[in-house]
Amino acid sequence: MSNNRPGPTQLEQYPHTYSLTTRWMDNDVYGHVNNVVYYSYFDTIINRFLIEQAGLDIHQSGSIGLMVQSQCQYFSSVAYPDQLIGGFSVEKVGRSSVDYNIAIFKQNSIDAAAVGKLTHVFVNRETRNSMPIPPIILTALLSAKLKAN
Amino acid sequence: MSNNRPGPTQLEQYPHTYSLTTRWMDNDVYGHVNNVVYYSYFDTIINRFLIEQAGLDIHQSGSIGLMVQSQCQYFSSVAYPDQLIGGFSVEKVGRSSVDYNIAIFKQNSIDAAAVGKLTHVFVNRETRNSMPIPPIILTALLSAKLKAN
Amino acid sequence: MSNNRPGPTQLEQYPHTYSLTTRWMDNDVYGHVNNVVYYSYFDTIINRFLIEQAGLDIHQSGSIGLMVQSQCQYFSSVAYPDQLIGGFSVEKVGRSSVDYNIAIFKQNSIDAAAVGKLTHVFVNRETRNSMPIPPIILTALLSAKLKAN
Amino acid sequence: MSNNRPGPTQLEQYPHTYSLTTRWMDNDVYGHVNNVVYYSYFDTIINRFLIEQAGLDIHQSGSIGLMVQSQCQYFSSVAYPDQLIGGFSVEKVGRSSVDYNIAIFKQNSIDAAAVGKLTHVFVNRETRNSMPIPPIILTALLSAKLKAN
Repeated sequence: MSNNRPGPTQLEQYPHTYSLTTRWMDNDVYGHVNNVVYYSYFDTIINRFLIEQAGLDIHQSGSIGLMVQSQCQYFSSVAYPDQLIGGFSVEKVGRSSVDYNIAIFKQNSIDAAAVGKLTHVFVNRETRNSMPIPPIILTALLSAKLKAN
Repeated sequence: MSNNRPGPTQLEQYPHTYSLTTRWMDNDVYGHVNNVVYYSYFDTIINRFLIEQAGLDIHQSGSIGLMVQSQCQYFSSVAYPDQLIGGFSVEKVGRSSVDYNIAIFKQNSIDAAAVGKLTHVFVNRETRNSMPIPPIILTALLSAKLKAN
Repeated sequence: MSNNRPGPTQLEQYPHTYSLTTRWMDNDVYGHVNNVVYYSYFDTIINRFLIEQAGLDIHQSGSIGLMVQSQCQYFSSVAYPDQLIGGFSVEKVGRSSVDYNIAIFKQNSIDAAAVGKLTHVFVNRETRNSMPIPPIILTALLSAKLKAN
Repeated sequence: MSNNRPGPTQLEQYPHTYSLTTRWMDNDVYGHVNNVVYYSYFDTIINRFLIEQAGLDIHQSGSIGLMVQSQCQYFSSVAYPDQLIGGFSVEKVGRSSVDYNIAIFKQNSIDAAAVGKLTHVFVNRETRNSMPIPPIILTALLSAKLKAN
């Protein structure tokens, strides 16, 4: 991570949003969504953006995004059966890597329950060597920067 | 299970339906939703019914439903990022147990991708001894029988 | 499933056994391993057998096993941080399909906490059409029948 | 996180180690353990330490640890059916919070595949207000500092 500033915590700052349904087994013994599960929300949101906005074919594309770093700050609990909203934005784009900001909101809440920063490196599917972000993906990423405050 | 007849496979036969979002990690190495994950859909649907229609408080209710049997037949694949619909119905209600039929449909498909039968026994939360299904839950269950063909 | 007889419940009846570690998030709100998670134990055990005893390469083999049916009966609870033992056996082998019996035991317990029956159909990895079980896998499966009582 | 230095990457630096078994569904479409799953390894290791070394009763203890921050750096892939070793250490202990360093190693490898930093805040189970770390847990945490290089 280039720094530890928390990502934006307001729903309106995120250029793309996605609905997420919680599952019974997301809740742990302490009665709320387990800290691990937020990362599966992050992963799901990032890949939906890449599939829908950037033409990624997770089964065939020659270039795929692998996670090299991830982090999350937890502000408040969510719990099954809450309906959730995920906010997606791009913080920074490099030659072969991209930093995402993702936030999870309880439906009808404007303050994030958790915010994550995650870094993808794009690699060749076969060799797993890093490669430049393909142009179509690059264009999509650059269009998804955080909204100015 | 009292028998092996497959549950109903048509969406219109199910009195309650619920939307489900798939997740990146639902897909396994073979590129489709792993067979295990269908059971987490079933569990999520059953408990949403119990919470929303039957007043179950998963954190406080004195009587809770524990799974004693479950089964699934898989007819076709679904895969992230598919949107799914879950059909919920009650097949049979006993003194302390209930048999559910649940089916999973790809959005805009009328034929089930998978159908499950699952049996809950209601038990005292503390002692875990079986007990009669509470009246409010019983009423809800009896109202959710499969639609006649 | 060809029938509803429960699979064998005694550890000594299983020709192959595997250690499994539970995880924090296996436990659900009710404080024990969620009913869904047992199927991930089953899946893990079956594929370990296929990899270690039958030469399956999950990334490359032309023939792969897909689940077409699964079921589980739950007899008693297990919970993180329990250490578990999984028993593996083959009940019946057909031209392209195989029925497995799998059982989950708490360490140092001889009675199963849960038993599952699952059916794999072997298919061509690309076309997903069913195909005869490859000879090397067939030989391994036939050697893993339940022990006579 | 107080900083971004990666945690230690050598197995010998960790005062406690735990075996972990991978699962079939840990692998994602890209054929290796999904980035999310590492956090479930972290969670499992931390709680095993707390249960076994610090007397935590996850069902009854009045004081429980909730995650407020987590992060992971991924260095190399692991994949089912790999056997894994998790290294556990305490980086810093505060009045009510503790920073952990956790690392995941493929069996027989001395270099970590991934390292995580995670922060627990101890709270009252009922009110969820933060509270001082109980003395028995504090003693255990202080005994699990990283080994000097």
